[in-house]
Amino acid sequence: MKTDIEIANSIEIKPIYEIADKLGIDRDLLEPYGRYKAKLPLSLIDKSKIDGKKLILVSAISPTPAGEGKTTISIGLTEGLNRIGKQATVVLREPSLGPVFGIKGGATGGGYSQVVPMEDINLHFTGDFGAIEKAHNLLSALIDNNIQSKTHSLNIDPRTVTWKRVMDMNDRSLRHIIVGLGGTSAGIPRETGFDITAASEVMAILCLSDDFEDLKNRLGNIFIGYTFDKKPIYARDLHAHGAMAALLKDAIKPNLVQTLEGNPAIIHGGPFANIAQGTNSIIATRMGLTLSDYVVTEAGFGFDLGAEKFFDIKCVKAGLKPTAVVMVATVRALKYHGGAKLDQLKEPNLEALKKGVANLEKQVENMKKFNICPVVAINKFITDTDEEIAFLAEKCKELDVPMEVAEVWAKGGEGAENLARLVAKVAEQCTCNMKPLYDWEWSVEKKIETIAKELYGAAAIDYTAEAKSDLKKVMDLGLDKLPVCIAKTQKSLSDNPKLLGRPKDFVVTVRQIEIASGAGFIIPITGSIMRMPGLPDIPAAEKIDIDNNGKITGLF
Amino acid sequence: MKTDIEIANSIEIKPIYEIADKLGIDRDLLEPYGRYKAKLPLSLIDKSKIDGKKLILVSAISPTPAGEGKTTISIGLTEGLNRIGKQATVVLREPSLGPVFGIKGGATGGGYSQVVPMEDINLHFTGDFGAIEKAHNLLSALIDNNIQSKTHSLNIDPRTVTWKRVMDMNDRSLRHIIVGLGGTSAGIPRETGFDITAASEVMAILCLSDDFEDLKNRLGNIFIGYTFDKKPIYARDLHAHGAMAALLKDAIKPNLVQTLEGNPAIIHGGPFANIAQGTNSIIATRMGLTLSDYVVTEAGFGFDLGAEKFFDIKCVKAGLKPTAVVMVATVRALKYHGGAKLDQLKEPNLEALKKGVANLEKQVENMKKFNICPVVAINKFITDTDEEIAFLAEKCKELDVPMEVAEVWAKGGEGAENLARLVAKVAEQCTCNMKPLYDWEWSVEKKIETIAKELYGAAAIDYTAEAKSDLKKVMDLGLDKLPVCIAKTQKSLSDNPKLLGRPKDFVVTVRQIEIASGAGFIIPITGSIMRMPGLPDIPAAEKIDIDNNGKITGLF
Repeated sequence: MKTDIEIANSIEIKPIYEIADKLGIDRDLLEPYGRYKAKLPLSLIDKSKIDGKKLILVSAISPTPAGEGKTTISIGLTEGLNRIGKQATVVLREPSLGPVFGIKGGATGGGYSQVVPMEDINLHFTGDFGAIEKAHNLLSALIDNNIQSKTHSLNIDPRTVTWKRVMDMNDRSLRHIIVGLGGTSAGIPRETGFDITAASEVMAILCLSDDFEDLKNRLGNIFIGYTFDKKPIYARDLHAHGAMAALLKDAIKPNLVQTLEGNPAIIHGGPFANIAQGTNSIIATRMGLTLSDYVVTEAGFGFDLGAEKFFDIKCVKAGLKPTAVVMVATVRALKYHGGAKLDQLKEPNLEALKKGVANLEKQVENMKKFNICPVVAINKFITDTDEEIAFLAEKCKELDVPMEVAEVWAKGGEGAENLARLVAKVAEQCTCNMKPLYDWEWSVEKKIETIAKELYGAAAIDYTAEAKSDLKKVMDLGLDKLPVCIAKTQKSLSDNPKLLGRPKDFVVTVRQIEIASGAGFIIPITGSIMRMPGLPDIPAAEKIDIDNNGKITGLF
Repeated sequence: MKTDIEIANSIEIKPIYEIADKLGIDRDLLEPYGRYKAKLPLSLIDKSKIDGKKLILVSAISPTPAGEGKTTISIGLTEGLNRIGKQATVVLREPSLGPVFGIKGGATGGGYSQVVPMEDINLHFTGDFGAIEKAHNLLSALIDNNIQSKTHSLNIDPRTVTWKRVMDMNDRSLRHIIVGLGGTSAGIPRETGFDITAASEVMAILCLSDDFEDLKNRLGNIFIGYTFDKKPIYARDLHAHGAMAALLKDAIKPNLVQTLEGNPAIIHGGPFANIAQGTNSIIATRMGLTLSDYVVTEAGFGFDLGAEKFFDIKCVKAGLKPTAVVMVATVRALKYHGGAKLDQLKEPNLEALKKGVANLEKQVENMKKFNICPVVAINKFITDTDEEIAFLAEKCKELDVPMEVAEVWAKGGEGAENLARLVAKVAEQCTCNMKPLYDWEWSVEKKIETIAKELYGAAAIDYTAEAKSDLKKVMDLGLDKLPVCIAKTQKSLSDNPKLLGRPKDFVVTVRQIEIASGAGFIIPITGSIMRMPGLPDIPAAEKIDIDNNGKITGLF
């Protein structure tokens, strides 16, 4: 069997100009990065052209180690839509280097549903992550420089500084560090740490901004900490936002690449799906909708996390209305939800499937709460039996949701033509008018309670003493009208990663509430959230190589 | 008076294809990065085309706070050469972000001698620094991951690890840090720190490599530290070099931009001039020589540091032979060397000039020790008097070195036509055959002594106990046949920054000897070398801004 990189290298990649031509982009406006990537200037966005375009969100059941394949379905569905004569673009997030060198690998799809050039997209791409990292760390340097300054001190209390540094690397040793050692000329010693770049608030900000003005305004709003006399300090107090935005002058522009079948792919931004919104930039989505009839996009983790934030934060902010939402499920993952062991998912097990389907049931119920037009896509594996597939078809009929099977990994767009026909029909007939689950004006507690009870299925919400104190801080800063971006384990509908399927009668505990006043949301934390992963005993990096012609091997 | 960025924005910048056309590059081989920058594939280098081409090195007297203008002279001279009908390319280093946000500003020349687009070149450019940073920090993460590993431990003694992390930022708080706090899952606590990216050995390696094979080999040779049982550990022991090289897949390719007058500029790499070789990549120099008749390039700091390393390390490694060497001096800087105060350099002061010219005298003597064809260029300021210039002309006649005045900041290429004519004549008539100052095969002490006595003018060399112990380590590792890259203050010919002009009878003290076995040199340290600068009280970052059209202000 061919590896992903072998499949990617086996196709004839088209010059990026040809992809741009498909979108009707004037070649003179394209900003090529090498021959197969390009940046798209913001001037191409035309909001008047967005009305009536079809925005398709791809979401999924609660993720399992078996993999669901949101990205491969998104890419395959786009190929399928183009095959049936629709002009469709897939709009995705950019991969982080951390997983590339760690365990997970890249994020460019797999098999015959990939975006290319995969080596480029997975390694630096057009430098967006690097630019976001620099903008973030410039603010960090300005903070410590101000703490050190005798003549221009803002009187910042170093113990209150919550702004850390970031690096796009799995490097656990940087999680908790002490900086500023080495005497009087080398800063003030204090505890801090590094997060991975995808977890940077600058990433969340870039992906929620309309343009440079909005970007700068949001960067200026970043909350840093307090002065010794308890006054809040924001990035604008350090005059940091102009230079930070200047560092993002190119990163703000979406990147154009292509699918294996030569269809347009716009890839831009990659915020975490727990402490941030987990979906590509508003600018990229608008770019896609300006330039093509169909945009297929995805949101991180399961529907309860990714899609909820997509609707309640991104769509509300940007005035976007999805015309169809695809719920991806696999027989394997549902069997895992039903208690089957990871190494036994290839074996037929209707009992486990019948039990595990409760997760799909709940997530489909959740879809309906947003007043959108739902579709279920079964991402088929060769080991799935006809009986298992038939069971899921019957279940979807019961749930009154249209369902289709797709085989995108092995067959690319050909394996998604039926799904594409169904999605196109649903999107074209859709008269739904998406409504968010909550109103931003509600109290923080009401917003949290609504999500936890209605989507997660929680019986009650509990706040730790720390969370209550954080809540007071949020109120004092006047940030309580911001939407909430709940950080919760993706593995369960509950806040306990071990409760698979459809847990009931559980209490969600809010442990802390963090502030992302630049991004424009607050983050109730319901579990331990990893913001700086570590490398495994044998990192994937050890297998990556490049020959003297610049040909890379070992990426996946 | 217009600012640099205003001047840069006032000219009509040409599409990068047109610049590539001037160099005879097939447009299909160009890898554009936006419309005004491009990467040049290594396949364009043709060593058979290098013979007979003119390589011009621009060096300078010992730097002063008054500024000498090596970069502006290099750019202006290239404009001048093109004006008099020579096909010339300027080949320079890439700027670091640290100084851009700190005090010094960018590194794209100034006035009417600039390379453009200056905003792009000064901010991320084509991502090379970011890639070098990632390659460096991947190795750091792999080291700490191995120290943490139970199943694949190499038994590395964390106290011996000399490999730090890097960030392209002036951030003094990162100089001395403790990582690995936070309990058993977050690494082993140990002392380490961050250097600025320009100081990374990966930067030095990239700039000394011939191709991917050489690059990988050098990356593998990086010395990390020792095991608990005192065995040396190299990057290849961690299987790091393949992935590091893959991260550098595009960074290894030189970048093509243009001068204000539309001539080709190749900008690639930016290693420090104290702990590294301080000049652009061998690949970029070869690219320039393949594609044009004249290549003008520069080396960091004064002749005693930058040019010495250029000849003894870069030229010897790459088999390059410069055909002319330009020594840049200014009346102002020489007056400063003669004891004039910084705020009085605009005033005529022939006495100070007569005293300070001793620095130029010694540096011209130094030029002759390499058997190259020398030229002195006086970078003229409006405040220089005719008498002062006449004195320098007379002095150069005495020293038997051809001299010309240039006014490149105010007049661009027009101000360098006479200098260009002189340089072209010298280069065309040059029959010198550059010879290095020392043989790599000599003992470390003999190599150090030769440089310190012959070039710096030292009376003797002293080694601290630590340096003697380091020397033994170098011998034990079998690295004593590597060239030496002496880290010394650039401000003086001696190792004491306060001794201006031409100090005599001084002793050079070698305090430590560091190993850069990947880059392929050892580093005798003769003073305190700053590898992670700090920001000033009012960082330049505070003035940098971007408007809603993406137009940047405040860069200089």
